[in-house]
Amino acid sequence: MTTQIQPQPLAPSLLDALNILLGQRLCTHHTVLLQHGHGESHHQPAPPAAIAYVNSADELTEIARLCHQHRTPMTAFGAGTSVEGQLQCVAGGLCIDFSQMNRIIEVNEADLNCAVEPGVTREQLNLHLRDKGLFFPVDPGANATLGGMVATGASGTTTVRYGGMKHNVLSLNAVLANGEPIVTGTAARKSSAGYNLTELIIGSEGTLALITEIRLKLYGIPEHVLAARIQFPSVHQAVSSVMDMMQHGLPVARLELLDEFALKAVNQYCGSQYPQQPTLFIEFHGSSTSTQEHAQQAQYICQEYGGSDFAWASTEADKKRMWHARHNAYYAALAQVPNGQGWVTDVCVPISHLAQCIEDTRQDLSDQGLDIPIVGHVGDGNFHLLFSIPPDNHTLLRQALDINQRLIQRALAAGGTCTGEHGIGLGKKHYLQQEKGESTITIMKGIKQTFDPLNLLNPGKIF
Amino acid sequence: MTTQIQPQPLAPSLLDALNILLGQRLCTHHTVLLQHGHGESHHQPAPPAAIAYVNSADELTEIARLCHQHRTPMTAFGAGTSVEGQLQCVAGGLCIDFSQMNRIIEVNEADLNCAVEPGVTREQLNLHLRDKGLFFPVDPGANATLGGMVATGASGTTTVRYGGMKHNVLSLNAVLANGEPIVTGTAARKSSAGYNLTELIIGSEGTLALITEIRLKLYGIPEHVLAARIQFPSVHQAVSSVMDMMQHGLPVARLELLDEFALKAVNQYCGSQYPQQPTLFIEFHGSSTSTQEHAQQAQYICQEYGGSDFAWASTEADKKRMWHARHNAYYAALAQVPNGQGWVTDVCVPISHLAQCIEDTRQDLSDQGLDIPIVGHVGDGNFHLLFSIPPDNHTLLRQALDINQRLIQRALAAGGTCTGEHGIGLGKKHYLQQEKGESTITIMKGIKQTFDPLNLLNPGKIF
Repeated sequence: MTTQIQPQPLAPSLLDALNILLGQRLCTHHTVLLQHGHGESHHQPAPPAAIAYVNSADELTEIARLCHQHRTPMTAFGAGTSVEGQLQCVAGGLCIDFSQMNRIIEVNEADLNCAVEPGVTREQLNLHLRDKGLFFPVDPGANATLGGMVATGASGTTTVRYGGMKHNVLSLNAVLANGEPIVTGTAARKSSAGYNLTELIIGSEGTLALITEIRLKLYGIPEHVLAARIQFPSVHQAVSSVMDMMQHGLPVARLELLDEFALKAVNQYCGSQYPQQPTLFIEFHGSSTSTQEHAQQAQYICQEYGGSDFAWASTEADKKRMWHARHNAYYAALAQVPNGQGWVTDVCVPISHLAQCIEDTRQDLSDQGLDIPIVGHVGDGNFHLLFSIPPDNHTLLRQALDINQRLIQRALAAGGTCTGEHGIGLGKKHYLQQEKGESTITIMKGIKQTFDPLNLLNPGKIF
Repeated sequence: MTTQIQPQPLAPSLLDALNILLGQRLCTHHTVLLQHGHGESHHQPAPPAAIAYVNSADELTEIARLCHQHRTPMTAFGAGTSVEGQLQCVAGGLCIDFSQMNRIIEVNEADLNCAVEPGVTREQLNLHLRDKGLFFPVDPGANATLGGMVATGASGTTTVRYGGMKHNVLSLNAVLANGEPIVTGTAARKSSAGYNLTELIIGSEGTLALITEIRLKLYGIPEHVLAARIQFPSVHQAVSSVMDMMQHGLPVARLELLDEFALKAVNQYCGSQYPQQPTLFIEFHGSSTSTQEHAQQAQYICQEYGGSDFAWASTEADKKRMWHARHNAYYAALAQVPNGQGWVTDVCVPISHLAQCIEDTRQDLSDQGLDIPIVGHVGDGNFHLLFSIPPDNHTLLRQALDINQRLIQRALAAGGTCTGEHGIGLGKKHYLQQEKGESTITIMKGIKQTFDPLNLLNPGKIF
């Protein structure tokens, strides 16, 4: 581990005021500070000077007012699962931990929506909804908080069917850096009232406002779920079949690729015997008749591209087995290297460029003598290289940085983006500049200035 | 017609420079100016001082630079179909007419997207796409330009299935008030790179930037389309069946309500004999099997709520007949009153409040002795009162304003919005204030200031 940056302590008058407000929920224990100085990434940790375990919107308003008065940075912390350095308190200050602000305020079955506090996790919400026959579909993999998922504009395995956070948030209540509360939307399914602040805050990585309440769209749990695993001779053929399925408008609910190196890692990690070939994982949601019909069409298309060994699953147990490899891919990749830390790339390209982009990247890896697993939300054109890098392996880190640099150039040249779902954080600031250009960045900085003129909210991120 | 406001003429040096740049495509003919001073609404027209028929992004950049230099307002004009006074040049200046900037730049079948200039109309695009088996689903009714649809954040009959503009635009190229070009996104299906400027410009009603290119998502034309018309004893029962269908996750592609007064108006206008009862129009898109299955489920649900006289249509001719009443509702409503001009309300409420909101509004109308037709995109909770008001009938205008005032209060009290799809324009500025609150409006104004510090783009709108 590199030398730890020590944050400036908070001003005594601020610390006193926070102490009166929060009591035991204000924390300055060294080890806890260290835990709050990073997410799940290779970026150098940067702990806060203190942590506020907030438990209501009113309390958050008061905390923001106090920090604003003392010109003290505020960084929101959910489940700590972000991967681009979004949680590093690079300017010290106060970390606001939302884990205790985790009430499900309301579930409105008639309108298929719910209101939650930002500390509610995805799994907590879905457990709560299950008895009502409802679910919230956005699934970034980790059991992130919904506030964190709003902040990073999360998406994931089901985005191809249900969209990401930006398609599934109706309204946000939030607090500005100076403690002013704002409300961005209503409980109506759509609105054209003024500028779309909901979508602006989604994906703003905690730099514009602190979220206090989220109104989410919900969906009925599908009557039937049919999942399949299909092997292909090459990534090119697997991705070609994906393109074909998308063009045919097949309503896939999940559409994931694991390449041969990902399967190899999973087999080593789990002791499983999956064929070490590029593999698609497909899922359909609907009625028994419609899922069967779609599955048949998918199978037909995949066969055209050399897909084989179709394994279909419809019971809960079978589906669990079916998705086993996909769910374990990240941990399997990490386990490839003793003491390895996750270092995950995140480009997204138009789907017609996806096969070539993955192939060129595989060639690049292989030129470097690396067999890094690749997994992808291929229905969206988004894929990840799952590096596992021990903290002291500077050579591998350098290689990963260079490979990612070339990968991003490849994605941008193909009309894609440097980040499909992980955000900019600390890690991709210069790529954002390249992707957007100076005029666009100037506008983004102007927006930041409008929301947070003193640059107190998660400073040092995005720009 | 009230007295016409005369705009200040453009500065001679600006007029000269525009003349050199545009030649015959700069227009100052009085009658053409008058035509460009309004959309389809009751708001008092306000003509520009001149019109620039722009035909390229480079030309637009130059126009914006010149206007910026001369501190001259710019108002974009598409097909002139907006209904909340968005096109009124209340500060005079230059109207930028996009009708000649109407090239379809690229259709990318593999990636299911296309790039178009803002003057392309919805019908023009769909005609172009038809042979490729593709379509663009957003349908606000009018044959609006896609630039206009971006600017007002349009939605409409298919939003319940395909979403509105905000779900179907991948990226925008635009020009700021000072002529600086910006690009908001990429051709990838998703991105988390920086603030979401795409969604911010969608629905900004021409106040933030002038759009030069739009990249849209496309869809395969569905294999089968099955449409139905169903009568109900009451609006309450019709809307209850809608709620039930939504809760069952039925993938309706369109879900429209005409109330008994709308049917009466259609019968008078078209000489048709539709039963004068609340009627739902439903459409399913999919395979033959799935549309049949969904139609059956819909029929079962509607019957539970007293729905009867199901008429199903699957051929092109039958569907056309089926949708005849819905398509003619607006013109039928206009024709109720000689020389009547359209005056359309636009609230959107959570669907659980929809029946009550419509019923209370009907009671209000009836207390005033009015039998105004109501139509609704009921799957979204959005409905319209179709007033038809002759220009000299100030009593009816006053009544409509008061009814709309009470309707909006009813919608806001139910957790809804003052505008589901028409925008704020001139007509709903004070309702926006009420809906959003002061802190939120301050942020919106700050965003306007960031994009357009001299307030040159469509001044006087939204705020």
